[in-house]
Amino acid sequence: MYSPTIQKLIKLFSKFPTVGPRTAARFVFYLLKLTDGEIKELIESISVLKETIKQCSFCFNPFEGEGELCEICADPRRDKSTLCVVEKETDLVPIEKTKKYLGRYFILGGTLSKFNHEDLNQLRTDELLARAKDEEIEEIIIATNPTTEGESTTLYLERILKPLNKKITRLGRGLPVGGELEYADEETLASALEGRK
Amino acid sequence: MYSPTIQKLIKLFSKFPTVGPRTAARFVFYLLKLTDGEIKELIESISVLKETIKQCSFCFNPFEGEGELCEICADPRRDKSTLCVVEKETDLVPIEKTKKYLGRYFILGGTLSKFNHEDLNQLRTDELLARAKDEEIEEIIIATNPTTEGESTTLYLERILKPLNKKITRLGRGLPVGGELEYADEETLASALEGRK
Repeated sequence: MYSPTIQKLIKLFSKFPTVGPRTAARFVFYLLKLTDGEIKELIESISVLKETIKQCSFCFNPFEGEGELCEICADPRRDKSTLCVVEKETDLVPIEKTKKYLGRYFILGGTLSKFNHEDLNQLRTDELLARAKDEEIEEIIIATNPTTEGESTTLYLERILKPLNKKITRLGRGLPVGGELEYADEETLASALEGRK
Repeated sequence: MYSPTIQKLIKLFSKFPTVGPRTAARFVFYLLKLTDGEIKELIESISVLKETIKQCSFCFNPFEGEGELCEICADPRRDKSTLCVVEKETDLVPIEKTKKYLGRYFILGGTLSKFNHEDLNQLRTDELLARAKDEEIEEIIIATNPTTEGESTTLYLERILKPLNKKITRLGRGLPVGGELEYADEETLASALEGRK
């Protein structure tokens, strides 16, 4: 129904998270209405992204600037004894916003799916174990989403971290089950952090 | 919370239809995970879009190819006596898919907002009047969405088209009120077309 150039772009946008073919089509028609300058700005922002953004060598959070470590990991005031494991980059932000957590983070890179144990290879479990072994780390907070996938990931992480004999905690319930951490309000998240067990 | 390069791209993606800042952030992290080749493919598809796609000089639908007219308007088998007015490009597709409409289209370019009559300047009402005046056009089907904005647009179009003394119809009800035409199933749309009054 759409012309090849439009179809191609609909296909590419459909791969974006949360985007289906209809929304992708809307994106294409939105782009068609932009000025040449606006298109150029978008293209340039996309092109420089991967050149500008580095991954923190400790927590894997993308950052921009000097050195190997992101702002949080490089901050000497952060408590080195706690490590908070989150599924993905966007989950770190709401926890930071609560201002109740002063330790460091670790971005796992996904969850363990119920069905597919190949996902395991995509998770940074080896890197997590390497970080967690460090003597200065006393507590590991597993802050996965309160979803089925998040829960099974927590169970798995608890099992592989157990031999280290460190304190392993989860975010306190209070998070609406089935929801996404990324969409939780700051208050709920703050009490979930405080009530961790 | 995010670095300037990421923030800039989040801002640009937030302007995309249906996208809020959280989804925009997910888009950025999705892009960071793509290979250089995939980024290049996306950028090239966006760059060629405006060069490749023309707007049909009759109906304003974007198309690709020779000439001034889109495939539908250039098709001699299409019935020249009916003109179907839709709000936007993505609304044309589901009507075409019903295969029950054989006339031509006209893309109005938006709706009349309840609150803001400045929207009027963005609607192609002058162009619509110019098309509708043509002797060969006998019926104008106003196929706006069954929303408040769509309804007020229909009322407005009926008023400005009335002096032409042509048959003016609307899509038959059966469309779920408050919904979007773009998401209607083909069956519902087909009966709405058949039951137009």
